[in-house]
Amino acid sequence: MEGALLVQKYGGTSVGDAERIRNVAGRIAAAHAGGNKVVAVVSAMGKTTDDLIDLAESIARDPAPRDLDLLLSTGETISCALMAMALREIGVDAVALGGGQAGIRTDAVHGRASIVAVDPKRVRAELDRGRVVIVAGFQGFTEELDVTTLGRGASDLTAVAMAAALGAERCEVYTDVEGIFTADPRVVPDARVLREVSYEEMLELASYGAKMQPRSIELAARYQTPVLVASSMSDAPGTLIHGAAERTAAAMEIRNKVNGVTYERGVARITVRAVPDRPGVAAALFTPLADAGVSVDTIVQNASAERLTDLSFTVDGPELARGLEVARPVAAEIGAADIAGRGGLGSVSIVGTGMQNAPGYAARMFRALHQAEVNIEMITTSQIRITCLVDESQVERAVRALHDAFELAQEE
Amino acid sequence: MEGALLVQKYGGTSVGDAERIRNVAGRIAAAHAGGNKVVAVVSAMGKTTDDLIDLAESIARDPAPRDLDLLLSTGETISCALMAMALREIGVDAVALGGGQAGIRTDAVHGRASIVAVDPKRVRAELDRGRVVIVAGFQGFTEELDVTTLGRGASDLTAVAMAAALGAERCEVYTDVEGIFTADPRVVPDARVLREVSYEEMLELASYGAKMQPRSIELAARYQTPVLVASSMSDAPGTLIHGAAERTAAAMEIRNKVNGVTYERGVARITVRAVPDRPGVAAALFTPLADAGVSVDTIVQNASAERLTDLSFTVDGPELARGLEVARPVAAEIGAADIAGRGGLGSVSIVGTGMQNAPGYAARMFRALHQAEVNIEMITTSQIRITCLVDESQVERAVRALHDAFELAQEE
Repeated sequence: MEGALLVQKYGGTSVGDAERIRNVAGRIAAAHAGGNKVVAVVSAMGKTTDDLIDLAESIARDPAPRDLDLLLSTGETISCALMAMALREIGVDAVALGGGQAGIRTDAVHGRASIVAVDPKRVRAELDRGRVVIVAGFQGFTEELDVTTLGRGASDLTAVAMAAALGAERCEVYTDVEGIFTADPRVVPDARVLREVSYEEMLELASYGAKMQPRSIELAARYQTPVLVASSMSDAPGTLIHGAAERTAAAMEIRNKVNGVTYERGVARITVRAVPDRPGVAAALFTPLADAGVSVDTIVQNASAERLTDLSFTVDGPELARGLEVARPVAAEIGAADIAGRGGLGSVSIVGTGMQNAPGYAARMFRALHQAEVNIEMITTSQIRITCLVDESQVERAVRALHDAFELAQEE
Repeated sequence: MEGALLVQKYGGTSVGDAERIRNVAGRIAAAHAGGNKVVAVVSAMGKTTDDLIDLAESIARDPAPRDLDLLLSTGETISCALMAMALREIGVDAVALGGGQAGIRTDAVHGRASIVAVDPKRVRAELDRGRVVIVAGFQGFTEELDVTTLGRGASDLTAVAMAAALGAERCEVYTDVEGIFTADPRVVPDARVLREVSYEEMLELASYGAKMQPRSIELAARYQTPVLVASSMSDAPGTLIHGAAERTAAAMEIRNKVNGVTYERGVARITVRAVPDRPGVAAALFTPLADAGVSVDTIVQNASAERLTDLSFTVDGPELARGLEVARPVAAEIGAADIAGRGGLGSVSIVGTGMQNAPGYAARMFRALHQAEVNIEMITTSQIRITCLVDESQVERAVRALHDAFELAQEE
């Protein structure tokens, strides 16, 4: 990677205090000394954003998003300025730029603005002067120079957008964990950091271990920008996220195409039984749920006998009662035989891009769960994921059984 | 003042916590409800700026001014956003603008930038929409959108510059004291708030009571922008600072043209005696002092007999030893008979625009000091000020004697 253009991103924990900022400055300096052009995007220090939100809420019950954006943007501005100071202190010429100043242009949807363009002119000019460029993450300017923020965790998005706009060799996202794990290490003691995953797998696996904002992964996929996720506290190699087509030949031939196991707790299911199967039934059911703000996760519909169908969907555990309350009259209206809710569920999934054209993974999964005496309550699949709903008390056992069955503890 | 355009400025104490911010929002709302167009410039909350400087110093021994500017500007940005929230909370449509966004354009002298232009387009547009405009003080943008700060206390400057650019009826500077006093109320119990002073008097009187940054007063004088200095905690009328020519007729005819008494403690004097009086002597003496960073305040030179002259100057008390160390070899070189230093001094001054064309004030001052048994160590005068150096232990007595002698406790 001699002479590459790298965009690095350091999260709030990595820049949580003066000592950590100095540590990160050392890492940036090393990358720069290695002959690379370096742009580093930084988040707000530790709990700064939460503190600013508390401050806002002590002033106004419902702060206007525009004001909140101006307020919250200061968190990243502060760490950006401090990081530049820390670099100069160790003799590295650095320049601190606010997000807007670095060319992040957004729409005016305050609080969750979308990037409409990146104008990297200023950043390029500073890089050409031999400087390290520090960019405040999470923020941009509208056309009117109003400060916007891109939503929680969106410093990742700043970094990926900047990398894409600059045509950077890669975007390196540094965090407090060592990369993307095959499973949650708190549940599976021999869970392992994956050396590489595809963008699609990352979208499924990012729910623990190294988190990355889904919008960032989608953006990286769109621009085919490779993203390295690694720890800012160690020298472990981390996980490289890139297009599946770019996998190394060795990885292409591995027998095991499952890359990780994920799970979720606190899931509830609502089942509407024996619904007359006619067009508009799903809309009739899910529109009032959406209007009531009940967020529906997975939906499964089984064709059943005599033009009747069973329809199940999952909601967050705490929303079960409200979901039932909204769905019950609708179920009666559409002529369903019965509606029932069940809480205390969880989900386990196996994830792998390679699965989609290879048969037998589902069967292997169900066999493994059966051997572990885990009962399957519901099954859904996507292109790269097979998910089983199970009793919440059996989630951990299920995750460990699947991690073993697909031999994920062994190096690729 | 129905329908006027007012620029208000609220200092760090006035916006020191959530409750005070809400209090100030109430005052702004009242001005707005009175039919005025209101622009409010705010400082950073309480000790925010000091906290940010501490943070910077925990990272770098000598932070770069550019980075420090970006860092410190966040203090005003935070109070600006919070003030807009507080106004919306009480139903007033407000918009928060950073200094740069409000059109404050500066040079690139980071840490003490000068305003090169104010482009009030955005502010005007927001006012025309019926909004209150909140502006972050103390900061601006360079042409390249780099954030600059205007120096400590420069939110006053932002307010005056904004008032001048908008052609505001007046600039109201709200602080934690009730206005400009005839003398320090801690020394003179019957010191009184002046109803009006001229810009020039303000420059001399601003050292206690309501402080205002001298650059702001100079700017107000240049654009003839009237400035009201008042308390944000009370409804006392405050002091109006404006051009002497605009004084009310009543004020024009008052018999007493002294407006206030000021003093300083911790003054030291260095006297170089019997210097051969030839060109270049002063330069020979003061250049090395300036190079050594010894700040010289007042300089007095007396012609004495036989082409010899005595030269005295004052320095801050703690700089006496260093000043003598630098000046002594120079004194020998330029052929002075003697050099001597004396610490433990103070100064008392009477201030008044009206004095300059009226004789007798100096005599009345010296008589008052004599009657109070205060010995005068040195005398200097300016157009609107007469200053006597006295023993530090006699400063308070001198201030009270002068306040009495010029009947300053009585209403104008």
